[in-house]
Amino acid sequence: MKIGILTSGGDCPGINATIRGVCKTAINHYGMEVYGIHSGFRGLLDNDIVPLDESSLTGLLNLGGTILGTSREKPFKRKAGAVSENKPAIMLQTIRERGLDCIVCIGGNGTQKTAAKLAEAGVNVVSIPKTIDNDVWGTDVSFGFDSAVTIATDAIDRLHSTASAHQRVMVIEVMGHKAGWIALHSGMAGGGDIILLPEIPFDIHRIGDAIINRLKKGKPYSIVVVAEGIPTIGGKKAAQYIAEEIEYETGFETRETVLGYIQRGGSPTAYDRNLATRMGGHATELIAQGMFGRMVALKGNTIESVPLSEVAGKLKLVTEDHDLIVQGRRMGICFG
Amino acid sequence: MKIGILTSGGDCPGINATIRGVCKTAINHYGMEVYGIHSGFRGLLDNDIVPLDESSLTGLLNLGGTILGTSREKPFKRKAGAVSENKPAIMLQTIRERGLDCIVCIGGNGTQKTAAKLAEAGVNVVSIPKTIDNDVWGTDVSFGFDSAVTIATDAIDRLHSTASAHQRVMVIEVMGHKAGWIALHSGMAGGGDIILLPEIPFDIHRIGDAIINRLKKGKPYSIVVVAEGIPTIGGKKAAQYIAEEIEYETGFETRETVLGYIQRGGSPTAYDRNLATRMGGHATELIAQGMFGRMVALKGNTIESVPLSEVAGKLKLVTEDHDLIVQGRRMGICFG
Amino acid sequence: MKIGILTSGGDCPGINATIRGVCKTAINHYGMEVYGIHSGFRGLLDNDIVPLDESSLTGLLNLGGTILGTSREKPFKRKAGAVSENKPAIMLQTIRERGLDCIVCIGGNGTQKTAAKLAEAGVNVVSIPKTIDNDVWGTDVSFGFDSAVTIATDAIDRLHSTASAHQRVMVIEVMGHKAGWIALHSGMAGGGDIILLPEIPFDIHRIGDAIINRLKKGKPYSIVVVAEGIPTIGGKKAAQYIAEEIEYETGFETRETVLGYIQRGGSPTAYDRNLATRMGGHATELIAQGMFGRMVALKGNTIESVPLSEVAGKLKLVTEDHDLIVQGRRMGICFG
Amino acid sequence: MKIGILTSGGDCPGINATIRGVCKTAINHYGMEVYGIHSGFRGLLDNDIVPLDESSLTGLLNLGGTILGTSREKPFKRKAGAVSENKPAIMLQTIRERGLDCIVCIGGNGTQKTAAKLAEAGVNVVSIPKTIDNDVWGTDVSFGFDSAVTIATDAIDRLHSTASAHQRVMVIEVMGHKAGWIALHSGMAGGGDIILLPEIPFDIHRIGDAIINRLKKGKPYSIVVVAEGIPTIGGKKAAQYIAEEIEYETGFETRETVLGYIQRGGSPTAYDRNLATRMGGHATELIAQGMFGRMVALKGNTIESVPLSEVAGKLKLVTEDHDLIVQGRRMGICFG
Repeated sequence: MKIGILTSGGDCPGINATIRGVCKTAINHYGMEVYGIHSGFRGLLDNDIVPLDESSLTGLLNLGGTILGTSREKPFKRKAGAVSENKPAIMLQTIRERGLDCIVCIGGNGTQKTAAKLAEAGVNVVSIPKTIDNDVWGTDVSFGFDSAVTIATDAIDRLHSTASAHQRVMVIEVMGHKAGWIALHSGMAGGGDIILLPEIPFDIHRIGDAIINRLKKGKPYSIVVVAEGIPTIGGKKAAQYIAEEIEYETGFETRETVLGYIQRGGSPTAYDRNLATRMGGHATELIAQGMFGRMVALKGNTIESVPLSEVAGKLKLVTEDHDLIVQGRRMGICFG
Repeated sequence: MKIGILTSGGDCPGINATIRGVCKTAINHYGMEVYGIHSGFRGLLDNDIVPLDESSLTGLLNLGGTILGTSREKPFKRKAGAVSENKPAIMLQTIRERGLDCIVCIGGNGTQKTAAKLAEAGVNVVSIPKTIDNDVWGTDVSFGFDSAVTIATDAIDRLHSTASAHQRVMVIEVMGHKAGWIALHSGMAGGGDIILLPEIPFDIHRIGDAIINRLKKGKPYSIVVVAEGIPTIGGKKAAQYIAEEIEYETGFETRETVLGYIQRGGSPTAYDRNLATRMGGHATELIAQGMFGRMVALKGNTIESVPLSEVAGKLKLVTEDHDLIVQGRRMGICFG
Repeated sequence: MKIGILTSGGDCPGINATIRGVCKTAINHYGMEVYGIHSGFRGLLDNDIVPLDESSLTGLLNLGGTILGTSREKPFKRKAGAVSENKPAIMLQTIRERGLDCIVCIGGNGTQKTAAKLAEAGVNVVSIPKTIDNDVWGTDVSFGFDSAVTIATDAIDRLHSTASAHQRVMVIEVMGHKAGWIALHSGMAGGGDIILLPEIPFDIHRIGDAIINRLKKGKPYSIVVVAEGIPTIGGKKAAQYIAEEIEYETGFETRETVLGYIQRGGSPTAYDRNLATRMGGHATELIAQGMFGRMVALKGNTIESVPLSEVAGKLKLVTEDHDLIVQGRRMGICFG
Repeated sequence: MKIGILTSGGDCPGINATIRGVCKTAINHYGMEVYGIHSGFRGLLDNDIVPLDESSLTGLLNLGGTILGTSREKPFKRKAGAVSENKPAIMLQTIRERGLDCIVCIGGNGTQKTAAKLAEAGVNVVSIPKTIDNDVWGTDVSFGFDSAVTIATDAIDRLHSTASAHQRVMVIEVMGHKAGWIALHSGMAGGGDIILLPEIPFDIHRIGDAIINRLKKGKPYSIVVVAEGIPTIGGKKAAQYIAEEIEYETGFETRETVLGYIQRGGSPTAYDRNLATRMGGHATELIAQGMFGRMVALKGNTIESVPLSEVAGKLKLVTEDHDLIVQGRRMGICFG
C-alpha cells in the first residue's frame, strides 16, 4: 500500500505533528509506504514527490510550519467558466504513474473542497481538517486553533498593562475572516471587555456605552478584541475602524494592534499536538480499512470521520447560543 | 440570595478564574450577594468569611493559586471510628448565622466527598471539579489539567536536547497518584518514547527492549515519562526506580527529573481559563434554578451537571482503549 | 526623609519592579517614608499622591505596567514660546506642602528632560531610565529592553514557519522611532536575513539582491526585520513600505506584520527584573547619600549614576561599528 | 584554512547558535573550511569528523542541545599518576591527518582545561566558554546562563501561587555545584525570600527567624531558593536538607522541588543567542588573525579574549559584595 500525503492552504501549528502521526502509524503498524507530495496539490501537477521514512519524522512533533511546503493551488477552479482540463488529468496521471493507492490531504476549507473533487474523480482520498480559524464544518475542533488562541490570549494579556497604565482603550484584531472563533476564545480567555465577531452584528453606540459604563465603575480603560472579518466602512481594517469609532464615541485615547501572522506560526500547544497525532493516526486507520472519501473529525472526545461530500462548501460559524457568549453576557461582556 | 464560595484541596491553575466566573455572573446577572470563605472548609469552622464585590475580581482571570486560600480540612472525616460531632454542627451553624443560602465548593475528589456530605446534611451545595490530575469522576476534563500538561510538555521538550546531546535516557516524573492522565497527555505531546501510567502494568524487560530497539534504529537516547503513582520497590520515587532499572537493564547512562510543584502553579492556559469561566458561570445558573447537590461537569463540548452523590468516592482512570494509547502503540510508543 | 516616586511616559516591563526596589530599600533599610505620585508629573499638578508601605509592594516584581499610572504630561513645555507659568510653580508647591524631600522620576528621554528641569528648579531629583527602545543616553542598557527584544524575537521565530512553508518574504516591524536597538537585537536573535535600522541608510536594490541571492542558495524565503522609524515614502508605515518595495523588486510574495503594543506589555524577563531591582535600590542609595540631580545608569556590569544635566536632550543610537552589526555582516546578514 | 569545531561537557542552550556563528563567519567572510568533530574530544580520538557547510547551519540559532554531540572525555586526565600516553598522541595524529589548522573548543571549565593542554601540546586552539552555571573564569557572562536563569525564574514564579494558597514554605533547588550564580539571579528575579549559595555560609536559625518574621508581617509563606552545591549533612540533596531543617525550626509545612535537567535544555533566550553569535564570530576572527591559545570572553559590553593559560583551573564565584546581594540584603532578603 502506497500513501501520498500533502498539505495545502495556510500554514498552521500542528501540521508536522499530523504528518508524523499519519506516517508513523502507516510505517510502523501497517507496513505501508509513504510519499510526501510537495507544495500542496501543485506537487501532483509538478510530480514533486519524495519517499518519507522514519528518519524524515524526527523532530516533527513540535515543529511549526510544514516540512512538505504548501500552496494555494486549486486545480479544479474554473477560469472563465471552465476548469483547466489539464490540471485534474495531470494529477490523476501523476497518482497513477507513482502508483499511489491513496492521497491524504491536510488542509482547510479550500482543501476539503479540492479533496472532495479529487475523490469524485475516482481517487482514494482521506482528508484531515487544518485551520487556525476553526471554521471547517464537521469537526468540533481543528488542530492549530488552540495554538492560535494561546498566542492571541498571551498578546491580550500584555495589552492589559498598557491599557491600565495609560487609561486607554486598546483594540486588538485577531484572525478570523468569516468565523469569530479565535476572537471569542481569546477574547474571553484574555479578559476582553468587548468582543466583536463577524457572526454578531454590533452597534457602535452600545460599544461606546459599555466603555463609558466601565469608567463609571472606576475602570477608565478597556480591552476590545475584534475578528478581522467584522464589517467596516471604507475598506478599513477591523482594528483601525473600531478604534476610530470608539475614539469618536467616547473621547477615550484608543490604540490598535493587528496581531497578524504570528498567530499561525511556531510550535503547537500540547493540546494541538495530541489532536494532530490522533487525527493523523485515525487517517491511516481509515486507509487501512478502505474507508475513503472521508474527513477525520473530532466529535466530543472521540475521533471519527464524516463524508467529504458533506463537508465541502460549508463553514462552521459561531452562534449566539454558544456557551461562552451566553456566560460572557451574564458576566457583563459586550458582544456588540 | 447569598452565596458562599470556598476552594479546598491542592491548588491548581484556574481556580481564581472560576471564582470570577461564579461571582461576576452572580453579581452582574442575578443580583446575588457573594461571600468568600477562607481556607476551604476550615473557613466554615473558623467563621472566616468576607464579602466579595466586583472590585475583588480584578485581575483574577489569569492569576494562579486561589485568593481564598485553601486547606485539606476534612470536617466529616472519622477519627477512631467517629466523626468529630462538633465540626459538621459548627459548619451548619456558621452557614445559618451568616445567612448563606448555598455553598459553592471548588475542589478535587476529597472536596467532592465533603461537598456530598454537606449536601446530605441539608445544605444547598453546588460543586465544581478542580484537579490538575483530571481524575474527578463525572466530568470529561477538569480545569488545571491542560495547564499542567502544558508545563510538563514544555519540560519534556527541554529534555530532548540533553538526551540527544549526551546519548542518554532521560526519565521524567510527572504528577498523577492514581491516574496517569498527565503522563499520558504530556508524554504523547512531548514525544516520549516510553510512557508509564499507574493504570497499565509494565514489564521492565520490555522497557529495556524498547530502548535497545531505538539504539538499533540509530537513536541512542530515549525519553521516558512516568506518573508518580506507578508501583515501585522499596519505597523509591517513580523516576528514581525506573532510572535505576533502565540503567541496569540497558547499560545506558540514565538521568531522572522529578517535575514537582511547578506543575500546579502559575497562570492557567487559555483553554483552562475558558473552561473555568464556563464552569463558574454554570454553577451560578444551577443556583439560580435551585438545582442543588450537583457538580458542574464538561460532557463533550457542553457544560452540564451530575448529582454529587454519584461522583463522591469514584475516580476517573485511564483505560487501555483510550485513543491516545491505541494510536501511541501503533506509532511504536511503549506503554510498558 | 520622605520620598515621592513617579512614573512617566510610555509603560514598559519592569517599572513595578523598580518601584519595589526603590521602596523596599527605602523602607526596610533606611527607614524612609515613600509616597506614590499618580499619573507621572500630572500627579504633582493634581496633588494625587498616596503613601506606599510594604503591603503595597506585594506581587510587583513580575507585574507589567505601573501601579502608579503614567501620563505624557510635560509641565515645562513651552506653548507659543512660553512655559505655562503655573505648572512648575504648582509642582513646587505640591512638593513643599507634602513635605517631600526628594522625587524619584522613572521614565524615558522626555522624563529625563523634565526631571533635569525640575532639578534646575531646586528640587532634589533622582531619576531612573526606563525605555523599551534602549535609547536613553548615559546607560548601557535600560530595563524593558530585554523584555521587548524577547517578545519580538519570539514573534520572529513564529514567522519562520510561515515564510518557509509558503516560500514568502515576511516583513516584521518592531518598535524604535529614532533608535534601532530592538530591531538589531531581535533581528539577530530571530535569524533575520535583512535588518533595517533608522541609523543605517538602506538601498532597496541591495535588499532585493540579498533576497534573490538567498533564492540562489536554495532558500526561497526571507525574514526582514525593520524598525518603525526607518524613512519611508508617502507616510507609509515602515513594514508596509518595505513589503511593497520588496515585492516590486523581487516578485516574491511578501507579507507584513506590525508587532505593536504587545512589545511593551506583560511580565518583565528575569534580566529586566534584576536590572530594575538594582537600579531601584541604587536610586535609594543616592538619596541616602544626598546625591541629587543624577540618573542611575548601568555601565558594563555595575550600577552607577550620571548627572541629569548631561543626559537630557541626548539620544543613544546604534552605530555601524556595533559588534552585532560587524558580526552580522560577516555572517551574510544585510543591513541595507 | 581548515577549522575543526567541537563541543564538550554538559549541554547548554546556545551551543548551536555558537557553532552557527563560528561557521557562518568562517565560510561566508573568510572562505575557511569547517569540520564538525563529534562527541567532544572523543571525536578526535575516534576520527569522527564531518565537513560542515551552510546547509548544515539552517535552524541552528534557536535549537537547544548541540548538533555535534558532546561527551565528558578528558584525554589528558591522569590515571594512576600517568596520562594515557596514547590519547594526546592520537588526537594530534587525527588533527594532522585531517589537515586541521586549528580547533575551536566550546565548553565549560573542564573543557577549558583540556583546551589549554591541547594548546600546550602545540595545537592552534581557540576556545569559547559555555556553561549554564556561569562559573568560567575570565568572562563576565557565559551563554546558557541567561536561559537557565529564565527557566528557573519561571519555575519560582509558579511556586508563589502554591506557597500563598497553602501557606507553606516552598524550597526550590537550582543548579550550581560550586557557584551560586543561578540561585542568586533566579532567586532575586523570582522574588525569593531566602537565597542560599555555596559561597555564603548560612545559619539555619537565622533562616528560621526570617520565615517567622515574615509571618509576623502577615506573610505566612516563604520561597527559599537554594543552589545544589550548598553544604548539607548526611549526603542529603540541598532542597531536602533545607526543607527538613526549616520544618524543624519553624513548624511550617515545607515542600521541596529539585528543578534538575530542564534548566539546561531547550531554546536559548534572545540574550543568549546574541551572546553566542557574537562569541562564535569573535572566535573566527581570532583564528583569522592567528591569535591562538585564547578563550573568547565578554568584558562589560565588548567581546574580547583572554589567554587560555590564565583561565584553566580557576572558577568564577559569587562574592558578598555583588550588587544583587548588597541590594537584596537592603530589601530584606536573607542570604543565610
